[in-house]
Amino acid sequence: MILTLKSGVSKKGIDDVVRQIKKLKLKAHLSQGTEKVIIGVIGPNAAIHREIFEGLEAIEAITAISKPYKLVSREFKKSDTIFNVRGVKIGGPAITLIAGPCSVDKKESLFEIANAVKQAGAQILRGGAFKPRTSPYQFQGHGYKALRWLQQTRQMTRLPIITEVMDPRHVSTVARYADILQIGARNAQNFFLLKEVGKAKKPVMLKRGMAMTIEEWLLAAEYIAAHGNHEIIMCERGIRTYETATRFTLDLNAVPLLKQLTHLPVFVDPSHGVGVRELIPAMARAAVAAGADGLIVEVHRSPTEALSDGHQALLPAQFAQMVGELRKVAAALGRTL
Amino acid sequence: MILTLKSGVSKKGIDDVVRQIKKLKLKAHLSQGTEKVIIGVIGPNAAIHREIFEGLEAIEAITAISKPYKLVSREFKKSDTIFNVRGVKIGGPAITLIAGPCSVDKKESLFEIANAVKQAGAQILRGGAFKPRTSPYQFQGHGYKALRWLQQTRQMTRLPIITEVMDPRHVSTVARYADILQIGARNAQNFFLLKEVGKAKKPVMLKRGMAMTIEEWLLAAEYIAAHGNHEIIMCERGIRTYETATRFTLDLNAVPLLKQLTHLPVFVDPSHGVGVRELIPAMARAAVAAGADGLIVEVHRSPTEALSDGHQALLPAQFAQMVGELRKVAAALGRTL
Amino acid sequence: MILTLKSGVSKKGIDDVVRQIKKLKLKAHLSQGTEKVIIGVIGPNAAIHREIFEGLEAIEAITAISKPYKLVSREFKKSDTIFNVRGVKIGGPAITLIAGPCSVDKKESLFEIANAVKQAGAQILRGGAFKPRTSPYQFQGHGYKALRWLQQTRQMTRLPIITEVMDPRHVSTVARYADILQIGARNAQNFFLLKEVGKAKKPVMLKRGMAMTIEEWLLAAEYIAAHGNHEIIMCERGIRTYETATRFTLDLNAVPLLKQLTHLPVFVDPSHGVGVRELIPAMARAAVAAGADGLIVEVHRSPTEALSDGHQALLPAQFAQMVGELRKVAAALGRTL
Amino acid sequence: MILTLKSGVSKKGIDDVVRQIKKLKLKAHLSQGTEKVIIGVIGPNAAIHREIFEGLEAIEAITAISKPYKLVSREFKKSDTIFNVRGVKIGGPAITLIAGPCSVDKKESLFEIANAVKQAGAQILRGGAFKPRTSPYQFQGHGYKALRWLQQTRQMTRLPIITEVMDPRHVSTVARYADILQIGARNAQNFFLLKEVGKAKKPVMLKRGMAMTIEEWLLAAEYIAAHGNHEIIMCERGIRTYETATRFTLDLNAVPLLKQLTHLPVFVDPSHGVGVRELIPAMARAAVAAGADGLIVEVHRSPTEALSDGHQALLPAQFAQMVGELRKVAAALGRTL
Repeated sequence: MILTLKSGVSKKGIDDVVRQIKKLKLKAHLSQGTEKVIIGVIGPNAAIHREIFEGLEAIEAITAISKPYKLVSREFKKSDTIFNVRGVKIGGPAITLIAGPCSVDKKESLFEIANAVKQAGAQILRGGAFKPRTSPYQFQGHGYKALRWLQQTRQMTRLPIITEVMDPRHVSTVARYADILQIGARNAQNFFLLKEVGKAKKPVMLKRGMAMTIEEWLLAAEYIAAHGNHEIIMCERGIRTYETATRFTLDLNAVPLLKQLTHLPVFVDPSHGVGVRELIPAMARAAVAAGADGLIVEVHRSPTEALSDGHQALLPAQFAQMVGELRKVAAALGRTL
Repeated sequence: MILTLKSGVSKKGIDDVVRQIKKLKLKAHLSQGTEKVIIGVIGPNAAIHREIFEGLEAIEAITAISKPYKLVSREFKKSDTIFNVRGVKIGGPAITLIAGPCSVDKKESLFEIANAVKQAGAQILRGGAFKPRTSPYQFQGHGYKALRWLQQTRQMTRLPIITEVMDPRHVSTVARYADILQIGARNAQNFFLLKEVGKAKKPVMLKRGMAMTIEEWLLAAEYIAAHGNHEIIMCERGIRTYETATRFTLDLNAVPLLKQLTHLPVFVDPSHGVGVRELIPAMARAAVAAGADGLIVEVHRSPTEALSDGHQALLPAQFAQMVGELRKVAAALGRTL
Repeated sequence: MILTLKSGVSKKGIDDVVRQIKKLKLKAHLSQGTEKVIIGVIGPNAAIHREIFEGLEAIEAITAISKPYKLVSREFKKSDTIFNVRGVKIGGPAITLIAGPCSVDKKESLFEIANAVKQAGAQILRGGAFKPRTSPYQFQGHGYKALRWLQQTRQMTRLPIITEVMDPRHVSTVARYADILQIGARNAQNFFLLKEVGKAKKPVMLKRGMAMTIEEWLLAAEYIAAHGNHEIIMCERGIRTYETATRFTLDLNAVPLLKQLTHLPVFVDPSHGVGVRELIPAMARAAVAAGADGLIVEVHRSPTEALSDGHQALLPAQFAQMVGELRKVAAALGRTL
Repeated sequence: MILTLKSGVSKKGIDDVVRQIKKLKLKAHLSQGTEKVIIGVIGPNAAIHREIFEGLEAIEAITAISKPYKLVSREFKKSDTIFNVRGVKIGGPAITLIAGPCSVDKKESLFEIANAVKQAGAQILRGGAFKPRTSPYQFQGHGYKALRWLQQTRQMTRLPIITEVMDPRHVSTVARYADILQIGARNAQNFFLLKEVGKAKKPVMLKRGMAMTIEEWLLAAEYIAAHGNHEIIMCERGIRTYETATRFTLDLNAVPLLKQLTHLPVFVDPSHGVGVRELIPAMARAAVAAGADGLIVEVHRSPTEALSDGHQALLPAQFAQMVGELRKVAAALGRTL
C-alpha cells in the first residue's frame, strides 16, 4: 500500500503517519521526492488497515500495489531510480560501463587492466576477490588480499570498484572496500545474504539466478529493499537453457520487461551470458539497444593465463573497439556512454 | 569435402570433375563465384575418395569441412549469401524488413495493412494462409483463398510476399503464389517438408524450432540445401525456457553465432520471440544491433480483432515509429534499412 | 459440450440429435457405452447452442468440458480407453510391452530380434522404416522395403507391428502394413500429418514433442480424435532440458498427470528418454511404478552395428532380464505384464 | 589420485604416507575398510607427484580419478556409503522414509504429525525451522523456537530430525538440534555454507539446485566431503523446465545415474518435484522403482492451514496408504522399507 502525502506536509505530519504505521506492526518506507513524499506501507495484510490511513489528515491518496514485490515495483515509484557511486551516476540517461578481470589474480595485472579499461571508457572497475567456483579444487579467489589490491587500484585510477560478496559474515568487511556489492547468480536466492546486504550502506548489484523467473528476481531485490537498501542494480547475465553452443542464453527480453516492472537500473553482463569471446561485442550492442542502463564486461590482458573464465574475457584492445561501437548505438537512441 | 578449381578452368574441366563425383555416387554442389569455381562433394564417406580428386588436373585445392553441416557452413562458402526476391536484396548490408498480419483474416484489412507497412518502410509482406494452431478448434487459416488475396495485394503494393507452408503436398502450389516459403517452428524438423522445399524454386525462411540447438537448426537448413535450394534465411523466433513472463525467450546469442557458422542470412522474429506488444520495438532494435540481416514483424490494424496472436501485433503507427528507431541503430552500425 | 442420452434411447432418437448437431455446423462424436450413449458436440462456440439441445426429448444431461481438449479429456469419457491390436489389449490392467530395433537395418537381424523379444515377453514389435534423422547425411531408413520386412516378420512371429510415419502422403500406405502408426517427437505438432492419421483406420501412438507442454500434447491428440480416430496412445519419451548427462529428461510426472486428465492409454519410451543403455531398466521399472500402461523399448543384437541410436539399445539378454523385474513391479501394483 | 595401501600396513606406514602428502601441500582423505586402507590425495596437480608415492614402501597401487569430483566418486570408493543416524541406517538395502510438515508451524500439530508419520512407517521427521521463501513478506519459519519444538518431538517420538540450514552463521547451532542438516535447492551452490556443513559433525542432505547439472551437484557434494564430512545424502527434488502443469520436473533419470557415479545414498523428494498432491504417491513409487535409497515427503494434518506449500502435503491417511504401496514395490526389488 502506498500513501501519497499532501504537498507541503510538515515534518510532524510525516512522523505521525510513520508512528501509526509502526503501531500496526507494519514497516514504513519513506521516499522523499522533490514535490511529494510517499510512504510504502509494507507487511502481511497491510491492506486491511486502509481505513485507518484514510482518516489521517496528512494523506492525499492511498494506492494498492498489485504485484507481490512492492518497494521495487514501478507502481511504488514511477520515476527511474538514479544513484551516485563516487561521482558515477547509475540509472540515468548515461549508460554505465563496468569492466575488469573476472578474478583479481595479480596486483600488477589488475593495475594494468584498470588503466586500460579506464582509458577505453569504463567508469567502474570489476574484479573478483571471493569467487564462486563449481569445484572446490578450482582457484577460489585471493579474498581479503584482493580487496586491498582493488582499493589501491581505486586510489590510483579513481575508478570505483565492484566486487562479489558470497557470505553474510563478509558483508561488513567487503562493504568497507567495495563501492558496489555484487550478489552472484548462485546466491541470488541466498536470502540471509540478501538481508545482510539490505542492511549495508553500499549499492548492490543483484545478478539473476540462472533459473530464476523475472518475478522471483524482483522478489529477491525486494528482500534487499525491505531491509533498507534501495540502491539496487538488476543485472541480467544469461539463463540456463538446453542450448550448449553458448555458455548461457542471454535473456535480453528481460531488459525492456524489467524497465516496465521496476524503477531500478537494469544492467547486462554479456561476458557470462554468452561465454564466447568473439560474440560478446555484438551482444553488448544488443543490450544497449534493448535499453540497458549499463554493462559489466570481463577484460583481461592475457585471457589464457586468467585464473578463471579466460575464454570469455575481451582483450583491452577488443574492449576499446567495442566501446566505440557502443557509443554509436547509445547515441542513436539518444543516450550517452 | 570442398574442391576449389583452378582459375580459368574450362567448362569441360568442370564437367569432368562433376562426372567423377557422380561416378562415386556422391553429390556435387557447384558454386560459381566471380573468380573461382568451388564444388561441394557431399555424401557418406566422401572424404575417403580424396586421393582420386587429387589426381584431377582441374583441381587446385581440396578442403575438408569439419562441421556436420556442409553446404550451409562458412567453411564451404566464406562470403555472405545474398539473393534477390523481386528486387529486394536479402543478406547484404541493407537490412530487410518484413511485416504484415499473423494470419490473413480479411482481404480488405490485408490491403490496408500492406499499404501501411509499405509506407512505414517494410519491403516484404508477411501473412499466414495456412496456420499451425495448437488446438484443432482454433482458426486454421483461410488457405488457398488467402493465397489469392496475398497475390492480389502484391499486384497492388508491389511488395513480395512470404507465407507459411505446412504440408509437403502444398509446396508446389504455395510456391506458385509466394515469393518466399516459410517453414514454421513446429515444422523445423519435418524432414519430408524440408526436402520438398529443397526442391522448390523459391527462397525458404527456416524458423528455429522451439527446442532446437543451433547445430540441429543448421542441419535442418542443410536438408534444404542438400536437395538443391541454396536460398535459405535462418530466422530466430525465440526458444522455450522456464520463463513465463514472455511468450518465448528470444535467443539473440544465436545471431552473432550463426553469422560465424554459416554464410546464410540471419533474421529475427521479435513478435513471437517476445509475445508482448510493448516490448517488441526494444527487441527489434536489439536484433539489429546484434547483427541481424532482417526482421519479420506482425502488424495488425486492430489487434483485438485478429484471428490469431493479436496480443503480439504492433499497430501500424507503432510499427512506423519502430522503423524510425531501427534506421538510427542500423546507421550507427554502418548498415541501411 | 457433452450430451448424455437417456437410457434406452432409440436409433432414431440418436439420429435426431446428430442431425440437429450437423444443422448447427457442429461435429458430433458418438461414444456408445454398454449403458449410455454420449455425444461430444464439438465446434467453435458450441456452448452457445445449449438451449437448443435442452429442448430435445432424447437428452438426459448436458455437460460443459472445461479443458481446451475435449474428446480426449477425462471429462468427456470417465472410463479408460481400451482397444485391441490383433489380440493385444492396450490400455487395460495388463501392461503392454513393445520392443524391437530403432531402425530396421537388415531382414535377418529383424527376424532374430523379433523372435528374441517375443520370447522375452514383448507383445508388439517396433522397427523404423522411415527415420527422422537430424542430418540429411545420416541413414534415413529403408522405407517401403523395411515395411515389407516388418510384414514378413509379423507373419512369422504373430507380433503386431508399430512403425513411424513422417509424411502425410505416406499414411495410407504405411497404414496398410502397420498395426499401429507412430508419430515421432519431431512431428508431434505436424498438424497435417495429425489430421491424416486421424482419418486412418489404425491406432496411433503420439510421442510427446521435446518441448511440448502436457496441454499442447493433449491438443495434438485432439487433432487426431477430432478427425475420427479415437484409438490413441500417448507416449512420454523425454523432454529437452539443460541436463546433458542423459539424452533427454524423462518426465515421469507426465504419467500420473495424464492418467488424471485423459482416458487414453499412457506409454513410456525409456530408451529415448534416458539415452544411456545401463540406466534404461531402472527407468522402465520407474515408468511401470508411476502407472504407465505400456513401454516401448529399443533392442538390438549388436548395438554397435545399429544404423541408428545403438548406444541406447538393450541387448536381448538385458531386455529379458528387465522384463523379469518389470513383472515383479507390475504384480506389486496389481497389474500384469 | 587414490593410494591403495598394502594389506596389513602398520599405523606408522599409514602415518608416513600422510606426512608425505601434507609435505606436498596436498590433502589426505583416509578411508579405512575392513581389508584395505585407501587414501585420497586431493589438491591441484596432485597427479604430478605420482612418482614420489610410487617409491613409498606401504603403497600397493595408485589410481587416478578421471572425474572432476573425487571423494564422492565411485572411482574413489566402490562400495555404497552407509551411515547411521540414531539407529536408522542410511544407504543400505533398507529404504529410508522421512516425513513431516514443510515448515514447523505449531508445536501441537508437529507432535501430532510426528506420531502419525511414525505410526505409518516414517523413520525420520522433517520440519522446517528456517524457510527459504521467494518473497520477504511470506512466513520465514519460526527459527530457533521451531528447533526446540523439533527437539522435544524427538524426545517424545524417538524419531531423528532433519531440518534446513540456510546461513553459515547458523550451522553450529542447528547442528546441535538436528540429526541431519538439510541444504536446500536455492543454497546448493552457496559455497561458504557447503564448507561450513563440511566441518559439522552431522550428516548432510544436499538437495539438487533447480538448474544444476549432475556434475555440478556432485561437485557441490565434493565441497562438503573435501572439508571433512563424508556423510552426505544426494536428494533429487525436481529441476526447472518449461513445463508448468507440475511445479518442477522430477528428474528420476538422476537416480540410476547417480548410483553409477557416486557411492553416496540417493534420495528423492516427490513433494517438491511434483507439487500436486494427487500425483505424489505415483512418483514416490517410481522413485523407489528407479532405485532411490530413501524418500522425503511432506505431510500435514490440514494442508489448507499450512504456513507453506500446503498444496503439496499429503494427509496422514494418504501417507499411510502410500507407504503400503511403497513396501510392495520395495519388496518386488528385493529391498525393505
